[in-house]
Amino acid sequence: MSRYSETEIVALYRVMHERRDMRHFLPDPVDPQVLTRLLAAAHLAPSVGLMQPWRFVRITDRALRREIQTLVEAERVATAEALEERSDEFMRLKVEGILECGELLVAALMDGRERHVFGRRTLPEMDLASVACAIQNLWLAARAEGLGMGWVSLFDPQALARLLVMPEGAKPVAILCLGHVEKFYPAPMLELEGWAQRRPLQELLFQNTWDNTEELT
Amino acid sequence: MSRYSETEIVALYRVMHERRDMRHFLPDPVDPQVLTRLLAAAHLAPSVGLMQPWRFVRITDRALRREIQTLVEAERVATAEALEERSDEFMRLKVEGILECGELLVAALMDGRERHVFGRRTLPEMDLASVACAIQNLWLAARAEGLGMGWVSLFDPQALARLLVMPEGAKPVAILCLGHVEKFYPAPMLELEGWAQRRPLQELLFQNTWDNTEELT
Repeated sequence: MSRYSETEIVALYRVMHERRDMRHFLPDPVDPQVLTRLLAAAHLAPSVGLMQPWRFVRITDRALRREIQTLVEAERVATAEALEERSDEFMRLKVEGILECGELLVAALMDGRERHVFGRRTLPEMDLASVACAIQNLWLAARAEGLGMGWVSLFDPQALARLLVMPEGAKPVAILCLGHVEKFYPAPMLELEGWAQRRPLQELLFQNTWDNTEELT
Repeated sequence: MSRYSETEIVALYRVMHERRDMRHFLPDPVDPQVLTRLLAAAHLAPSVGLMQPWRFVRITDRALRREIQTLVEAERVATAEALEERSDEFMRLKVEGILECGELLVAALMDGRERHVFGRRTLPEMDLASVACAIQNLWLAARAEGLGMGWVSLFDPQALARLLVMPEGAKPVAILCLGHVEKFYPAPMLELEGWAQRRPLQELLFQNTWDNTEELT
């Protein structure tokens, strides 16, 4: 029942195809009304037990933005060291556009999550899954509105929590760079740069038991 | 640049508004071509370091489906016990449609994830965030195609991993009930049933520091 029109379905698949993790931005400001629509889209996401664990901190203080970039730069260097033989290759990649993007947001898990047991008794990490769904909504909506976004996870969460004066139990999970872009990458930047390749879908689908890749239909 | 047409943008926000976590299904089969499109949509999701950690197991064996439902039922009872004073209220909720839905999928984290360090040195759980983005893509695409989906996280992940013969290191994170529905709930079922209420967006947005809720614009 209630299948959408062909035009609407095509639009949805198009935005999924054209969404990119952006690290290059133009400094132009983001229209506040558009930003509000994007955050409202995030808030339409599913959440485990309807707990709505997402919180968004909008960074408007320039000095704070620089401090956040400094945190990320420290983790970038630490990651390069951990990567060993791919260290140089990693250091050549642009991994964030924190200082350039029009809007900087931090997405976080709220505090007090231990009170929410529905769907989390054996899988407490479902709260993060809910926040990720919210971020994906925001990302798709941004792309349709002509804005790029990048999800940066190169940071020490405790240090970032301190910087934003988060209460005990809250945890930042994403630094979101949002803004106008000159153009969207035609493919994932990490693919264009040769860091990794996209795998054929068929290799990721199994039937009844793991690694049983017999034809699905 | 490259803002989508008004029609396309409206379609995207519409599908986010109308997506629901469904637990009531019609038994009609899902068109295999549609299923393939939905899984391809999932595979368009962003992933940390382009690691593509998602795997999908399609359950076509009827006996296996019953075993999965038995696992969920056991966890439903255990959750009710953990909920204490809300136990009876919880037990009255319909939490899954595993035996009724046209297609049953299990979404899982792949094994061997420890090799992927990019974006995960301090936040290893970003792999789950990527899988959640893939599931959200699938969910939105299903809604546009006129199909309902429910994400069930009431299960013991180790028991489900054993049932699907998953290798060490792989982990199931979602039982996805997918299929035709008589109608989509007009609001989240847990809201209609009085389990929880949606919160105003403004309460979830802060500026620069936590709990600083001054106006965003």
